[in-house]
This record gives sequence, structure tokens and C-alpha cells, in this order.
Amino acid sequence: MAQMTPASSAPAALDPCGALETLFAPRSVAVIGASENPEKWGYWLASGALAGRDRRSVHLVNRRGGGLRGVPFLPSLAEIPGPAEHVVVAVPPGQVRRIVVEGLAAGARCFTVITSGGATADEERELAGLITGHGARLLGPNCMGVVDTRGELLLSWGDFPTGGVGLVSQSGNLALEIGRLLSRAGQGFSRFVSLGNQRDIDAADAVEALITHEPTHIIAAYIEDFRDGRRLLRALTAARQAGKPVLLLTVGRSEASGRAAASHTGALVSARATVAAACGEAGALLLESAGELVDTALALLSPALPAGPRVAVAGDSGGQGALAADALAVRGLTVPPLPPMVSDALAAHLPPGAVPANPVDLAGAGESDLGNYARVAGALLLGGGTDAVVLTGYFGDYATANPAQTERECAVAREMADAVRISGRPLVVHTMARDTPALTVLRKHGIPVHEHIEHASAALANALRWTKLASRPAVELPDPAGDVVLDGGYEATRALLRAYGLAFPEAAFVTTADEAARSARRIGYPLVLKAMGLAHKTEAGGVALDLREEGALRTAFARMRSATGAAGYAVESMTRPPHAVELIAGVRRDPAFGPVAMAGIGGVTAELLGDTALALAPLTHDAARALLLSLRHAPLLTGWRGAPAIDLDAATAALTALVRAAVEHPELSELEVNPLLVHPGGAVALDAHGVLGT
Amino acid sequence: MAQMTPASSAPAALDPCGALETLFAPRSVAVIGASENPEKWGYWLASGALAGRDRRSVHLVNRRGGGLRGVPFLPSLAEIPGPAEHVVVAVPPGQVRRIVVEGLAAGARCFTVITSGGATADEERELAGLITGHGARLLGPNCMGVVDTRGELLLSWGDFPTGGVGLVSQSGNLALEIGRLLSRAGQGFSRFVSLGNQRDIDAADAVEALITHEPTHIIAAYIEDFRDGRRLLRALTAARQAGKPVLLLTVGRSEASGRAAASHTGALVSARATVAAACGEAGALLLESAGELVDTALALLSPALPAGPRVAVAGDSGGQGALAADALAVRGLTVPPLPPMVSDALAAHLPPGAVPANPVDLAGAGESDLGNYARVAGALLLGGGTDAVVLTGYFGDYATANPAQTERECAVAREMADAVRISGRPLVVHTMARDTPALTVLRKHGIPVHEHIEHASAALANALRWTKLASRPAVELPDPAGDVVLDGGYEATRALLRAYGLAFPEAAFVTTADEAARSARRIGYPLVLKAMGLAHKTEAGGVALDLREEGALRTAFARMRSATGAAGYAVESMTRPPHAVELIAGVRRDPAFGPVAMAGIGGVTAELLGDTALALAPLTHDAARALLLSLRHAPLLTGWRGAPAIDLDAATAALTALVRAAVEHPELSELEVNPLLVHPGGAVALDAHGVLGT
Repeated sequence: MAQMTPASSAPAALDPCGALETLFAPRSVAVIGASENPEKWGYWLASGALAGRDRRSVHLVNRRGGGLRGVPFLPSLAEIPGPAEHVVVAVPPGQVRRIVVEGLAAGARCFTVITSGGATADEERELAGLITGHGARLLGPNCMGVVDTRGELLLSWGDFPTGGVGLVSQSGNLALEIGRLLSRAGQGFSRFVSLGNQRDIDAADAVEALITHEPTHIIAAYIEDFRDGRRLLRALTAARQAGKPVLLLTVGRSEASGRAAASHTGALVSARATVAAACGEAGALLLESAGELVDTALALLSPALPAGPRVAVAGDSGGQGALAADALAVRGLTVPPLPPMVSDALAAHLPPGAVPANPVDLAGAGESDLGNYARVAGALLLGGGTDAVVLTGYFGDYATANPAQTERECAVAREMADAVRISGRPLVVHTMARDTPALTVLRKHGIPVHEHIEHASAALANALRWTKLASRPAVELPDPAGDVVLDGGYEATRALLRAYGLAFPEAAFVTTADEAARSARRIGYPLVLKAMGLAHKTEAGGVALDLREEGALRTAFARMRSATGAAGYAVESMTRPPHAVELIAGVRRDPAFGPVAMAGIGGVTAELLGDTALALAPLTHDAARALLLSLRHAPLLTGWRGAPAIDLDAATAALTALVRAAVEHPELSELEVNPLLVHPGGAVALDAHGVLGT
Repeated sequence: MAQMTPASSAPAALDPCGALETLFAPRSVAVIGASENPEKWGYWLASGALAGRDRRSVHLVNRRGGGLRGVPFLPSLAEIPGPAEHVVVAVPPGQVRRIVVEGLAAGARCFTVITSGGATADEERELAGLITGHGARLLGPNCMGVVDTRGELLLSWGDFPTGGVGLVSQSGNLALEIGRLLSRAGQGFSRFVSLGNQRDIDAADAVEALITHEPTHIIAAYIEDFRDGRRLLRALTAARQAGKPVLLLTVGRSEASGRAAASHTGALVSARATVAAACGEAGALLLESAGELVDTALALLSPALPAGPRVAVAGDSGGQGALAADALAVRGLTVPPLPPMVSDALAAHLPPGAVPANPVDLAGAGESDLGNYARVAGALLLGGGTDAVVLTGYFGDYATANPAQTERECAVAREMADAVRISGRPLVVHTMARDTPALTVLRKHGIPVHEHIEHASAALANALRWTKLASRPAVELPDPAGDVVLDGGYEATRALLRAYGLAFPEAAFVTTADEAARSARRIGYPLVLKAMGLAHKTEAGGVALDLREEGALRTAFARMRSATGAAGYAVESMTRPPHAVELIAGVRRDPAFGPVAMAGIGGVTAELLGDTALALAPLTHDAARALLLSLRHAPLLTGWRGAPAIDLDAATAALTALVRAAVEHPELSELEVNPLLVHPGGAVALDAHGVLGT
């Protein structure tokens, strides 16, 4: 195990990996600002540090003296006998720098700075530079500390039950909430890292450290500020490749949460759709709440994962079974009829009133003989035809009314756990019981137990999503091209995009009606005339379509010049290929994740519903194709209602080229083609524009 | 109170209202099949009946003798001294009829038949007829009994905590689940009615009885079999008008739940979309699960309801506040910036690190002084600018780590409850605590407390939905028209719909090319030629558009006859009004709710996404207009992107007329116009068809 490798205690050259080990598994800890007062952080940190005294030397420092549990507070770091590898700082902000200087002198290799506020961002950066310049690492400042439950490292506040979830969080209370929910489900944490202001150790560092940490089976993260989003993306991808699910929470679904995050961590909030795209590419699950995260973790920690969407439902009540089937169905799972052999096996076990279909309605047979639960669960898990079993209703509560049944109910729970193990198929239990002996047995065997059927259903659906997630290797950002685009207008972006291979109609850029007429003779009618330099040209009267001869062109030119006052105009060949579909395609820059590609279907009705999809740029040909096919209106591309399919390869190539042009030209903060006309014979861009700088 | 009116105990003429009172508030009860064995229903019924012994005479019958709690079991109903108004039957099916005959002779006015199975549907109907023929009422058979908590009438199995929810259910275990969740939240039932097979007392009866029952504040219902859906609709509408929210659960979102319900209660399951439409019209809330039902009930039972969607969020943690804002926003609520006066008031209360915005981030100020929770909640509730307050995170748990805070935390809870009462605005609490003294205080004052922020958000959103729901008076079904449509083909349905006022293009129905050519000369080119009697004419080559002269018509005719072999053809004027939008409109019959109107937007991209909406037929003009405007693509009708608006009155009139034609012709199980072309100048039907019978 990596964390057992002793790290050098002397100041050394940069050795991030070794130094992160002193974050989680230091040989010595010093708490600066230790306190005897249970209302102070210094008390909880000192108290937590002392809990690991059998594992490491623990030093408590408070310049006013005092002591805790027989350990006297030393007046300063200088008094500590021997080195303190990991120094936890809970003193007023103005004193932090002095403590760090003293700590570095005393051989500290890692600082966890709890202290909040006071220091400016520049002062924090200087502090981080001082620490990392000595080859040491900084967690925080403004963080809630770090925990390694198996290593008995408890440098935080609150309860941290032991389990398989490694948590990386920018919110302390959210970590406590997740811990509480895990604990109620009989689960807990392997490690907890509170990121705070991420001046050195950031989310990507923390995720990386959890990937190699054997007791961590699930990586959970709450992140508001993604910093270097591409680096985090690589960490998430590495986690997926290591078989460790990452369950991510973030903000930004509402304007209000963006405001909150900005004031909380100063983050420029990434659009949630961008984070969702990043998670999709890395193979991480983006979730909504602490509750959904914990429910999903339970499903993923269970002894078996669903291989497909087919669920068998069983319960002692027809109504609960039916509602369970609906709750599963709305979350993308299916409740198919059972194979005859399985139905027959159920019918053989059950009394006549019961329904050996899917859902299985025990119709009281569970109440009259608890063994029927084990027989039904066993038949469903082992019989095949479905990928998972959901037990709904009452199991776990029979002994509450009749304590004489306790042993029997626990035995049935064990039999069901055995069937899960033998079958390799998951069982999820929804019950109105809470914290009964039979549920404890189920939880001990990793069988998830839920109070709400919709949670059971969502967790199973998320577990299935995880099994289907592939992590695409992150496509690296290319170096900028040598040339720089100086103008975001149509003429310049058209030239750029043509150089990258996009097809445009033949065009001429003119300033007078005579020039327009001359160009028109060369290009040939019918033509389009467009005014240049307008934000909304169609609305401003800056577009005239289907001009069929010079008179019409001159009339349109005169009208357009008077309406728009534009200095420049484009005269373009009018292109109207049959069976064409309008796309929108573009690239924008996210503060954390950089360039993000967007594709959407244009046209009146599709625009009304905003059918667009995102992916981190650049795009491989396969990723671009998948992006187009992920649109809700994608059937329009592949031959809807007998229409010929558009040339998907040409559309994909155009999208890929547009995206490459944008990423190789970081001077453009936006680049868009709208519409990109795709049709059975190819793809042609009818307009383009860019935005310079940010 | 109605249930206090003594009902006559003698067999009487039909008096359903009085007789339902003997269901809930009998002056005497007899349990037939009483048992000493706690594993038998007869034990729980007898035991429950005895709990009401101070209120009414209770008789226990078991022909084998025995006794319970000092009350001897009598050998038969005939031995009962005096009448038994309410007879509860828990004997094998074969004995039920004999018991009913004996009971009627002994003056019974209500029978609750628990017994399941055995009797056929016909036997059950005969039994119901026997009972109602004597002016008595039947609950069940195959039901879980009836409970009136305040009347100490406990004729069921399980715990029924007392509270404000009246439950009508076709599933016993679901009732237990709802009871368990209510109890955990400090709430409970006013009454519970288990419907069973509804051979006499049905869901509509039970809902009606709860409307006039004063202690019932919320009516909850789980219904699989809607029976006479129109009668239930009237009951739901009456509940809305009486100010009692109805929270409805049903099945039918998945094929599996429909299968389950069919085998459970033999119901022909109504399409969930139809039930949703019925709820929308009656002003009832259709929900997903027991959990959502209980959460919503808590919000509706709270001392104040939200008047609008604006929510203020407060918590001691920035992360939880941000996630709460997102959870609210995705459920249609808003978290707007606070008015400056409220922000200023918060800033005056809070220490510098806290954020007096929305979400309010107490940033530890709650932990350092619990009074800050009361001050912040008070400022938000009383300050205005928002319609509700959500407190998220940790409140209620501070005393867990530090019991010395218990009194203080409870006092803060009381202060918050006072602020709710004074402000008339709701407070909803999300917390990681469970069952602590401060939460008990909150619950005692009706403040909802949730373990999951998404539940808190959904409950608040549902409470707001309730305040906005209007119950439309149910439109009665008209009598059938005198004439009967004999054929569902285009010619017959076109004639029918023209008689109801729909416009169609001029047409002639022909069988030969010469006839077609003659008709064409009269109608005038361009024309459409359609083959009659085909299910999918376009796909079969049975439609030719835009025929501009006789040669083209004859060619198309010959090709179409050879492709389809159709015997009849329509020659129609080709109609292509500018700025037209294609609609689909029709009526189908639901087994419970009867004719249901459907409107949708046609055209390629809209059809791809299936944009349709339902409403119970017939439609008033206003309801038809609202139905059209409820479509996601409705902006296409009202002038999207500068296009002229279609003639919405003409579209509405066409829809209304089509629906009236269908409901007055019940011989048509379906009637559809597709497409109905609506445009700025009117509405014209381009095709129609019907289906005869069922």
C-alpha cells in the first residue's frame, strides 16, 4: 500500500507524491492552536489527533499553555521534540505565516490550514509558494482538514464513520451530511479531504491520491471551483480506468447557486452542462444531492452490479410492486415479463393467491411465511431473465410487531445475501422498516436498503449508468496556430474555416452595388446578399435571399444599405440542397475546462426547444459523430420518415474542423457556424462569426 | 360534526349518507371471525375493535368460542344482544354470504368484508346487491378495513397514527408505508378506508365522505381501478372547492405496473396521461410515491403556504445553500436576490464572514450562536421579497454534540415557528439531524422537516402547485346524437365533422379515373388524390399531392390503383395556406374516464418529439384554447420569430367541434383529424378517420 511508504522528514526537492503521503499518513502531527474548549476547532483537532496517538507522535501547541487528556500544550513549534511532518494550523490568520516559517524550519512536510478569512488571495498564494518552495504541501487555507479513517488520522471536526467512500469536498457541512447518511446506511469514509481555497493541493491532487488508496472503493467529490478543469478531467479518467466510480456534485444549475459559489470560493462557475460533458467524457457520474450520492455509493458498494436494465420486482403488496415498477421505468429501467422457467419456479414456491409474474405479488405469502421472501429472491436472482431484483414493501419489519420472528427474519436476510453472492446479481431493498436487526444483516452484507422506492430506483439506475460509462482518453489541447485571427466577422472567420476544410458557398465581399453586380455575374444567380458587421442581420433587414437577376440584386442592395447603413456586403451563391437539415455548431471557452464544442439542430421548431449538446474540445471524428447523434432530433439526420439520410461523415468532418480551428485559435473566445447545412450530398456552412478575446 | 349524527339502526330505505356514517362511526361493531392468535387478522380486528369499547358496543364472534381481553367470543351473530350496525367479516369466503344474511337480519347497516379471494366477481356483485338492497353498505370485499383515529374506530391491521390525512387506498401495505412515513414526521391519519374490490363503496364515495369530515385536512388516495372516472372527477372537484387538497397515487407509467394492477384488482388501467389530465381539471395533485405524498402532505399541513415561487435559502454552509438553490430551481422555484432592506437587516445581524445574500451563508454564525438562525429566518420570513424560506444543513443537531444547547436550540425552533405564524409564509427545514428535541418542536408547530433537500424542494413546489390549481367545473357528457356513424372511413367522418362545423377542402369521392377527371374539372387544379380505406396511406403510396393537370391526375390514379388496389378515391382541392402549422387532434375513450381529447403539433420535427396534450372531453372553448397553448411548441401558434400568429379562435373552434362530434357519437371509439392545418386565415382539416366500437 502506497500510504505505508515512509516519507522523508527532511525538507527535500519537490516530491508531490511523497508529500501527499504526509497529508494522509504522517509519522508525526502537530496541532497549532490546540484548545481545551469543546466549542473551539482547536479542541476537535487536538482531540482527533490524540485518537491516533498509537500510530504516530502527536504534539499540541498553544502559546498560552494548558493541555488535553494528559497531553500538555507546548508553547511553540520550536519546543516539539523531533520533527512534525504534518502541521495543522488553527490560529488567527495573522499568525499563520509565522507558524509556517517555524514549521518548515522544524521539518514539516505538509500544512493543513483550517483558518478562514483574513489573508488576501495574494497573501495566500505567497504562503503556498513559500511552502511548496520547500518541497512541502499545503491543504487549504480555509478548509475543514483531512481524515484517514483506517489510519486513525482525524484532523477535522465531526463524525467520520469508516467505510469505502473517499470524499473530496469544498464544503465541510456537506461532508458531514454525506457522513451522516452513509452512517445511517452502515457505510462510511475511507478518507476525507476538505479542499478549502485549493492554494496548493486541489481537487485533481486529492482524486489522484484516492485512486491509489486501496480502501477507497468510491470517490465522491463536491467541487465548486474546478481550477484546471483539464487536469481534473485526467484524474477523473484515471479513476474510471482504475475501476473506481467518481460521484460528483457541483453547483450552477441555477443563477443563485452560481452567485453563492462565487461568494463562497470566489470561483467562476462552469456551466453545469459543461461539467456534465466533462463527466461524460471522463466516465464520472454527475449527481444532484448528498442523498443521491450516498444512495448511488451504496449501490456501487454492493456485492454485485446490474449488467443490464431488466429488473425483477417482488413484494408482499400488489400496490407497492406496481409503484416500484413505475419508479424504475421512469428512471430508464425495465420490468419485463419473467422467463417461463422462473415463473414456474415461483409458482411452485408460492400459494395460489400470489402472482408469479413481474412484479411478483406475494399477496400475503411473505407475511405468512418469511421464508417465501428468500425463496422468491433466490428464484429471481438465480433464475435469469433479469439483471437485478428490487424487493419492495415490508421486509425487515415483521419482527417489529412479533419479536419472536427476529431470528427467522435475520436468517432470511442472510439467505438473500447468499443468493446475491452466488448469482452475481444485485438485490436492492425498499422497506418501511428502519434500523431493524434484519436490515442490519442486509447492510452488513452490502445489500442496499432504502426508505424511498424512488431512491432505490435511482441508485440502481445510476449503478447501471456506471457500468455503461466508458472513459474516453482526454484529447489534449493543441498548441495555438501560428497565425492570429484579428476579426470575428464573417469574412475573416469564413477564411479561417475554409482553411480548415469547411465548405462555404462561393462569395464575394463588396462595398458598392456595382461591385456586387460584377461579382454576381461571376458567381451566377440565384444569389444571397448579406450586410456585414451586424449582430442580428436577419432581424435588421441585412439578409436578402434568392435574388434571381441583377435588378433584384440592386433593389435589395439599395434597401439593405438604407436599412442597415452597413459598409460591407457579401454576395453569395444561393445554396438549397434537397433534404437538407440545418445544424448550429460552435465553440466557447469555459473558465475551467477551456474550449467546449456545441452542436445543435437548427430550424424553427427545433430551436424552439433548444436541442443542443456539448463536448470538451477538440473532438475526434468519433466524438463529433457521437455528439451529433446524441441530439434529440438526431433521427432527422439518419433518414426520418423515409427521407434520405444526410452525409453524416461530411457533417462530422465539418464539425471536427470547426472545433479544431477554434482550439488552435485561442484568441477567439467564441466561434460559431449557423447554419451548417447538412444534406445527403455533403455539408456547407452558410454563415460564421467569432468573438475576439474575453 | 357529521359523524356524530346517530344513524338509524333499523333496516331502512336507501340512505347512502347515513349508512356511510355507520362505516366510520357506528354505535356498535361486531367482528365475525375474531381470533386469539396474533398471527390472524381476526385477532387484530378484534383487538382494534376493543380499543373503541368506551365509545360503542363491541361484539366478537367465533363459532368455536374463546375470548380476548376478557370479552368472550359469541358463537354467532344471532347471539349478539342488540343490533350490530357495522359488521366486520373475516371468515373464509364460503361463509361470507351466510354471515351477511344473518347480519342484515340482526339490523346491520354496514359490512366490511376483509376476506379475500374465493368468491367470483359475479358472486361479489350478488352479495353487494343483497346488502345495498337492504339499504346497507358494503366495504370490500378483499379489503383491509377502515379506521377513524379520533373516533377510536380501528377495524384494520397495523399502526394508524392520528393526524390530518384521510387516506383512501386500494393497497393495504401502501397505507402502512404512508402511515409509517407520516408517523416519523409527527403526522398521521384522520381516517383510512381500504377499498378492496369496490363492489359498493368506491373511491368517489370515500373521497366524498372525507370532504365533509372536519379533522381531515388532506385527502390522500391510491387508486388502481377508477371505476366511474367521471363520478370520481366530481368528487375530486368538490374536494378542491372545499379547500381540501387531494394527493393521488396511481399506476400505469409502465407496462409492468399495468399488468400488476390488472392482476391485483382486475382493473383496466387508465393511461397515466389521462389520469393526469383528470387531476389537472379537478384540481388534484398526481404524485409518484408514498414518500412524495407524505412530503407534500407535510407542506400542505404547515401553518402557511407559499403564495409564489420565490424562495429564500439559508444555511450555515455555502455548499449546502448552493445545492439547495439548485434543487429548488430544477423544480420550478426561484431563489432571487433579496430586497436591499432584507439584505441590510441580515447584514446587521450577522458577523462579517457571513453572506447576507440569497442563499444566505451563515458561514459558521449559526454554529457560533444558534440565535442567528432565528434572526435570519425571522428577517427572511418577515422581510418580504420571497414567498417561502428553506433552511438547509445542520439545524436541530447542535445539541446532539453539545447537550447543553438543547434548551437554546428548542427555543430557537419556537422563535422560527412564531415567525412563520406572524409572517404567514412557510418555512421548510432540511437537516442532517433526525428526531432531535428541536426537530420535535418544529414538527409540533407544523414546520416540515426533511432529511433530503430534494424532498424539501419537491414538497414546496407541490404546495405551490396546489395553491395555483383551479378546479374547472366538470363538463358533463352530452347525450348521444340521434344519428349513428356506420363507418370510420374518411368520407363518413368528413361528413360528420363538416356537420359539426369543421372546414375541409372541396372534395369528390370517386371510383374511376374518368370520374376523377370530371370531378377535377369542377373542383379545379391543383389537386390531391387519396386512396380510401388504407390504414397508412402515405406509406402505401395512397396519396398524391399537387396534381396540376388532368394528365398528372390520370397518371397518379393509375399508379395508385396498381399500388394500393383501393376501391375508392378522394379528389380534393390542394390547400397550402401560408404560415400554416399542422396540428393533430382527436378523441379516444378511456375505460374509466370516457372520451379524452388529444391535441398535438404535427410536422416532422415536432412529431419526432411527440408533443401532445390531453384533456377530458368535451371541451369548452376556453379549455380547448388552453389545451393548444399547453403544447411545448405553442409558440409556433402565436407568432414565432416574426411569423404571423395563426387564427387561434378558428383552431380552437375546430378542436371543440371535433371533440363534440366524438362525444355525441359514442359508437366511435376513436375519432382523429390529422393534419388539422391552422393558419392566420383559419383552420382546415386535411384528413380524418374514426374507429367504430371498442
